[in-house]
Amino acid sequence: MSAAKLIGVGVGPGDPELMTLKAMRALGEADVIAYFAKAGHASHSLATAAPHLRNGATQLPLLYPVTTELPKCSDRYRDAIRDFFDGAAATLAAHLEAGRTVAVICEGDPLFYGSYMHLHARLAPRFTAEIVAGVTGMSGCWSAAGMPIAQGDDVFTVLPATLPEAELARRLGEADAAVVMKVGRHLPKLRRALERSGRLPGAIYVEHGTMADAVMMPLSAKPDDEAPYFAVVLVPGWEGRP
Amino acid sequence: MSAAKLIGVGVGPGDPELMTLKAMRALGEADVIAYFAKAGHASHSLATAAPHLRNGATQLPLLYPVTTELPKCSDRYRDAIRDFFDGAAATLAAHLEAGRTVAVICEGDPLFYGSYMHLHARLAPRFTAEIVAGVTGMSGCWSAAGMPIAQGDDVFTVLPATLPEAELARRLGEADAAVVMKVGRHLPKLRRALERSGRLPGAIYVEHGTMADAVMMPLSAKPDDEAPYFAVVLVPGWEGRP
Repeated sequence: MSAAKLIGVGVGPGDPELMTLKAMRALGEADVIAYFAKAGHASHSLATAAPHLRNGATQLPLLYPVTTELPKCSDRYRDAIRDFFDGAAATLAAHLEAGRTVAVICEGDPLFYGSYMHLHARLAPRFTAEIVAGVTGMSGCWSAAGMPIAQGDDVFTVLPATLPEAELARRLGEADAAVVMKVGRHLPKLRRALERSGRLPGAIYVEHGTMADAVMMPLSAKPDDEAPYFAVVLVPGWEGRP
Repeated sequence: MSAAKLIGVGVGPGDPELMTLKAMRALGEADVIAYFAKAGHASHSLATAAPHLRNGATQLPLLYPVTTELPKCSDRYRDAIRDFFDGAAATLAAHLEAGRTVAVICEGDPLFYGSYMHLHARLAPRFTAEIVAGVTGMSGCWSAAGMPIAQGDDVFTVLPATLPEAELARRLGEADAAVVMKVGRHLPKLRRALERSGRLPGAIYVEHGTMADAVMMPLSAKPDDEAPYFAVVLVPGWEGRP
């Protein structure tokens, strides 16, 4: 019987080769492989991890109960998500109590904007828990674009495109370098905020950053305002380089 | 003869297992392995990469001409650093012109606060250049600490501890989550800035994050103000989690 352990395993930004040796080992040693997914959708991170799983490992999908049907600020959304994480943690706890090693597959880096942290917060006080850091989606994006993002004493900021236009503009103006996430339907607003803050000229639009179908272009050259939810905009820092 | 190519290879935050499969392959295929180092100091990133190099690969140290002897804002510092990067780029260009594949070993992620970007900016316009994204030092730190750093619509900011106290305090107050880098002798000032912004209670001090001799503790429990240059302070976001 293996020792009961919870492991949040970062599998990187999508390119299967951007997984770490430690992630590969953790996946190969786990008794139970849990992963987040939407009902009816294939899990990309499971596909990334699949070649490294050991024969006979139990696969455990954790299916989000809601995604975009309810507004995120609503009580119903919060309740549904809280119940979901409570239930998923209870399922994992049963495996851990039976002495199993449970790996949770995480896109990117587990503790950086990932769902895993909601399980970690619930389970780490009761069980041995370990994190395998991963390459973040944003590192994958600026690397694929070949674009140095920050250097020296730059202030670097990650902003959700959901912020109001004036706040986006102010924060973009105050950062040396920035990444704007969750662009989707907020692209027209984000364009205006970049214009207001004088940051539009250097901004790069990236879609599916480290996938075979990656799309990258200066945002100023993008002819439309169509963008998937996970598109990002990179705003490079590094003024006055030697 | 292999095809001339420049590759910036992120080898991760220090733990040799946090290297990616892609980095391992890139290191194994390179004719020339370049790495930044201080004269008289062993290169930790070279040690991390060493098991993956192919027999007969040329090792090429790039020795910083100055580190802390000159103030960073001085013309002499800027000139010395610019001449150093110009010279290093010329050395690499000669290998590339001879048709060799040149890998530059980068701690963490190559385009995120790394020295490699100064070579990339000089050489990518002339030669095929590729980036292998890596796990950043800060991901290594919050993973080792088991501390979720940011979630949902958090604004996340990386700040250099070199900023003036009032600016540090203001920016810490405006971010949901933050990482303060280059702590070193700035720790007393950073403590005051965290106190002023109300962020001291959650702040975690981390030294040698992913190394065997890692030191981690709540900053409020650290009894002295001694800190190495590369120490970081993590300020977690994620209020109101479900």
